[in-house]
Amino acid sequence: MKKIDVAVLGATGTVGQKFIVLLQNHPYFEVKELVASERSAGKPYAAACSWKQNIPIPRNVAGLTVKSTEEILNSRILFSGLDSSVAGSAEEKYASEGHLVISNSSNHRMDRHVPLVIPEVNPDHLELIYRQQYDGAIVTNPNCSTIFLVMAIAPLYREFGVEAVNVTTLQAISGAGYPGVPSLDILGNVVPYIGSEEEKVETEPLKILGALSGDHIEPVSIKISAQCTRVPVYDGHTETLSIKLKSRAGLADVRRVLENFSGLPQELKLPSAPERPILVRTEEDRPQPRFDRDHGHGMSITVGRIRPCNVLDFKFLILSHNTVRGAAGASILNAEYLKAEGYF
Amino acid sequence: MKKIDVAVLGATGTVGQKFIVLLQNHPYFEVKELVASERSAGKPYAAACSWKQNIPIPRNVAGLTVKSTEEILNSRILFSGLDSSVAGSAEEKYASEGHLVISNSSNHRMDRHVPLVIPEVNPDHLELIYRQQYDGAIVTNPNCSTIFLVMAIAPLYREFGVEAVNVTTLQAISGAGYPGVPSLDILGNVVPYIGSEEEKVETEPLKILGALSGDHIEPVSIKISAQCTRVPVYDGHTETLSIKLKSRAGLADVRRVLENFSGLPQELKLPSAPERPILVRTEEDRPQPRFDRDHGHGMSITVGRIRPCNVLDFKFLILSHNTVRGAAGASILNAEYLKAEGYF
Amino acid sequence: MKKIDVAVLGATGTVGQKFIVLLQNHPYFEVKELVASERSAGKPYAAACSWKQNIPIPRNVAGLTVKSTEEILNSRILFSGLDSSVAGSAEEKYASEGHLVISNSSNHRMDRHVPLVIPEVNPDHLELIYRQQYDGAIVTNPNCSTIFLVMAIAPLYREFGVEAVNVTTLQAISGAGYPGVPSLDILGNVVPYIGSEEEKVETEPLKILGALSGDHIEPVSIKISAQCTRVPVYDGHTETLSIKLKSRAGLADVRRVLENFSGLPQELKLPSAPERPILVRTEEDRPQPRFDRDHGHGMSITVGRIRPCNVLDFKFLILSHNTVRGAAGASILNAEYLKAEGYF
Amino acid sequence: MKKIDVAVLGATGTVGQKFIVLLQNHPYFEVKELVASERSAGKPYAAACSWKQNIPIPRNVAGLTVKSTEEILNSRILFSGLDSSVAGSAEEKYASEGHLVISNSSNHRMDRHVPLVIPEVNPDHLELIYRQQYDGAIVTNPNCSTIFLVMAIAPLYREFGVEAVNVTTLQAISGAGYPGVPSLDILGNVVPYIGSEEEKVETEPLKILGALSGDHIEPVSIKISAQCTRVPVYDGHTETLSIKLKSRAGLADVRRVLENFSGLPQELKLPSAPERPILVRTEEDRPQPRFDRDHGHGMSITVGRIRPCNVLDFKFLILSHNTVRGAAGASILNAEYLKAEGYF
Repeated sequence: MKKIDVAVLGATGTVGQKFIVLLQNHPYFEVKELVASERSAGKPYAAACSWKQNIPIPRNVAGLTVKSTEEILNSRILFSGLDSSVAGSAEEKYASEGHLVISNSSNHRMDRHVPLVIPEVNPDHLELIYRQQYDGAIVTNPNCSTIFLVMAIAPLYREFGVEAVNVTTLQAISGAGYPGVPSLDILGNVVPYIGSEEEKVETEPLKILGALSGDHIEPVSIKISAQCTRVPVYDGHTETLSIKLKSRAGLADVRRVLENFSGLPQELKLPSAPERPILVRTEEDRPQPRFDRDHGHGMSITVGRIRPCNVLDFKFLILSHNTVRGAAGASILNAEYLKAEGYF
Repeated sequence: MKKIDVAVLGATGTVGQKFIVLLQNHPYFEVKELVASERSAGKPYAAACSWKQNIPIPRNVAGLTVKSTEEILNSRILFSGLDSSVAGSAEEKYASEGHLVISNSSNHRMDRHVPLVIPEVNPDHLELIYRQQYDGAIVTNPNCSTIFLVMAIAPLYREFGVEAVNVTTLQAISGAGYPGVPSLDILGNVVPYIGSEEEKVETEPLKILGALSGDHIEPVSIKISAQCTRVPVYDGHTETLSIKLKSRAGLADVRRVLENFSGLPQELKLPSAPERPILVRTEEDRPQPRFDRDHGHGMSITVGRIRPCNVLDFKFLILSHNTVRGAAGASILNAEYLKAEGYF
Repeated sequence: MKKIDVAVLGATGTVGQKFIVLLQNHPYFEVKELVASERSAGKPYAAACSWKQNIPIPRNVAGLTVKSTEEILNSRILFSGLDSSVAGSAEEKYASEGHLVISNSSNHRMDRHVPLVIPEVNPDHLELIYRQQYDGAIVTNPNCSTIFLVMAIAPLYREFGVEAVNVTTLQAISGAGYPGVPSLDILGNVVPYIGSEEEKVETEPLKILGALSGDHIEPVSIKISAQCTRVPVYDGHTETLSIKLKSRAGLADVRRVLENFSGLPQELKLPSAPERPILVRTEEDRPQPRFDRDHGHGMSITVGRIRPCNVLDFKFLILSHNTVRGAAGASILNAEYLKAEGYF
Repeated sequence: MKKIDVAVLGATGTVGQKFIVLLQNHPYFEVKELVASERSAGKPYAAACSWKQNIPIPRNVAGLTVKSTEEILNSRILFSGLDSSVAGSAEEKYASEGHLVISNSSNHRMDRHVPLVIPEVNPDHLELIYRQQYDGAIVTNPNCSTIFLVMAIAPLYREFGVEAVNVTTLQAISGAGYPGVPSLDILGNVVPYIGSEEEKVETEPLKILGALSGDHIEPVSIKISAQCTRVPVYDGHTETLSIKLKSRAGLADVRRVLENFSGLPQELKLPSAPERPILVRTEEDRPQPRFDRDHGHGMSITVGRIRPCNVLDFKFLILSHNTVRGAAGASILNAEYLKAEGYF
């Protein structure tokens, strides 16, 4: 099968680099174009980029000449890791020009006609792309901490209903990009604030779990409260969560529902879909970033320490890889699903 | 004024060392005896101890010969940093022999006749020592995470009542003693479990905030749910907290009540009492361990990011120094209060 | 080809666990027996072991019952990651019983008849096993820091001769095993001392680079001075090295000789042999543990910043994976070489 | 005594902040003016500065309006923590205007007429200021790693002569300023390169140990080779050093000479002068950043593990506080000496 040419927008950034790593030898897609800022445009990628990944730059990408956002792109599919300072208008421009923009940026997530999708949870929302005013379309995935949270509460929401969620995140430094968090701020320290993060975690889930209603999503009403912190961990966000369900459930029910969670990406055996979206661990001291971020090649979330909560109903921990399932991998899974379901 | 001779139990351990540091040049107390395990007994302290503090061993202590728990002690006042594996019976023995044991160990905290005291919060509970069957007595301070939590909720409890508290802790490695947490477990990682910690945080506050009723404390009924994690921070526990009050309060009220909190230790100007038990910060990214653990010489707690909570009523962060206000300093403040109020 | 049954001695320890990871799906060897201390003996491995690896315990190993050092082993080939407190006599016992002990322990490295081998450097020393008094034999690999050092200086030694080497190591915490280094000692700190390490680095190379002379190795005479430190890095030892050569060489010569280094493991295409034993990097800020420890699946060393030295002749950096090329992987490569060359 | 008004140049930067901290309540100097970039000029210091110190901004400084480098300064004495990108011309301008610039910047260190001074080592070099073409003058202190190195070798140089020094540094992140080293680069990692650092360590000592000869310094000839690395430590540089002396010395001699080192700052009892410039430790695992950086209020260096070296004569470790003795404190000690000796 001939692979589909794709471009990576924001190719020199942290998310852009991760797109390139995850798309190496991808069965559907082949990176043929790279877009970055004016400063990088015109240079070979290897020269323009301060590469920070554990594997070398893939050969077929290293020599590509970086394009500016002004240049016309030939690829129909664009993966966007653009910085939110430029993603807003740039993604609109590309969508207007007929491209399908699969974006990890936050700018358009809450736009009325833009689907905000985790393919295991709300793939039907992708229908919204036919309601967009663009010749092409914009498809987004949620914020990293939102994705992990929603993957964990979605099966409970379906089975029991959810009234309220209280969550504290302990987020890895790689989530802030490069140069990102100065070492003087985080070495041996905790920074209890991440700009806009709590708002995202409190609002995005309401759209994701909402119902497609014609040209928009009718949000659900769940009370979500988030406290987001940065900790000196390289990769892997930890979340402590308390949840109040609508209907009565036992501990065993909660565990079973989480463990059995599966979706269309699993059914379709999409290349990036983990066999099991949620792994439930029973050890008293898991999940941990070091040991649990890479399950399912970074696309599974791990849940642990499920137990009753004195304040809400249950509490447990969530962990996943913030730059894979929480960013670039999330976009790629969206694209795989769109491809498999014939959206393009 | 002649100083009062005191002994430090568990003198070679982490808490014992902190006792020695904090009692250096103390206006009331002078360390005259040191007790440690059989392995250390008979040796000069400097030889018995693997000293891990930032200042050198005080001269008057370095040469003291370590005693075993079998030996008779001359000091009436004993500060106990004994490991919980031995504190139970050892502290009882000392109390029976007529000593006043000021303990940081957890063993006797929930005993019916043993006061569990934060002097700013429940100094009246110390009356319980007259109900003990010992010739001497045992006085305890709470677990580190409990102390910070209770200091923050006590003023709100008095003013508005408290229905429920949801707390996640991000605890420093020094809380686990030495050798404590292996570096392979915590470097660049989060360990989402600390043995018995959540139980302590969920139950101790009910006694501390309870009412003295004859020979025991009538616990209050507040729903508390705790999730305790260990993070790669040296000193300083961070807690994210959500709270549901009994009566209605505005954000400004909450801030005011916290800021204005003060107690008898402040009135009595006790040597270890911080001028202000609670500091409230208004920056969006504080408190942080590095910058806020040392306020009030480690005896203040810092509260920050007070804001409404979508699930309970308010949420905010708490930070304090776990080995000072959270351990040795807590015991010393208890002793200072007992002294100032004529208990001995 | 039927695989050869092997046992892992010290199977629950850090090196033992790494043996199990690296021997998973090995083309020559299959782990059939596990030996550990009395405390673990009789239990299934999964229950006896506090598993700390990034992959789960291989299925075929998890259920094996751990044996004590008293029990008879059926496997001829034993990989030893025994603690040095017990390795001395245990390895002798096994060798006497006819086993071929491939050891990472330090106890017998300097024994007259025991080969101390890096297969790219001195495979001929393995002939010594026929001079041993055992029915079986003991074969050892050097200390981690020694291996990296010798791999870097061996090609220079052959080509130009080496007079003196000055080396400082910055060693990862995983080199100390588990629980190993307490986090309170190393978080945000440097510990400038590792027991016996400097002696090993200063003496082992003299044997490795020495000449087989009948029943023993005639050591070379090179002046080596080592300063060994521990740094808060998880995996990957860094070494800064200055070297004085015997004959004149240019910078380009040194680089060329290092880059072109290859040995019998490469010729024989042994399963664990990296394609290139030494990778030379030209960036000014490499090698770094994070990016360079995994080259050649952890079996390559990376050299960087080769430049003239004002005091000796040249200076450069060395980096490699301390638990792979520096420990378990080193033993396995020894075993592969012995197998390929018909020693068993 | 009326205090002398001083200005801090580069006041919002890391070194500038440290100047302000160390000059708080200084017996000679009072900070009256602050200079920073255009972006900060005109703002109150507290608003212009992202304060990263452990103590709050001193009250008398917080409200000062930051001046630009264009404005006329009233203070005669200027402490410069200017970034090297601007320090070159700015310091010259101030010196031409009659100010005495006490600089920590590297730009003018090697200028023919500019003294490069450690007051315990070469205070006589300050005479050079009378040879400068400025109405005022520029006085500099060395690079942090250089200072520690020279303090350790100066007494040996005087007593025995020094032929060669081989040094590897393990430098703290605070040495790179703020934001400085990205956490993604250094968490759990070593970066074996610090721009221009090795050149400074190899050349500055030759001037410092040189002899004043009319209008310039005649450099000494010592072979120095440096390898500089960055490690995940907050404060405190560690150096491993090997040294070859000119005349024969025993281990006890070396220790004695180091321990007894003292200079004019000690004789004059200057406010920032540590009682002992060099502390010699005898434990096998010291010095360590955590425990030894603060000796002498950060102004002492600690030497440890003095032992014979197989390649040169002796080897040992050096540790000191890089932002105190290694930067702001070094400049302040220079100023104190100038004041005490009547240079102003």
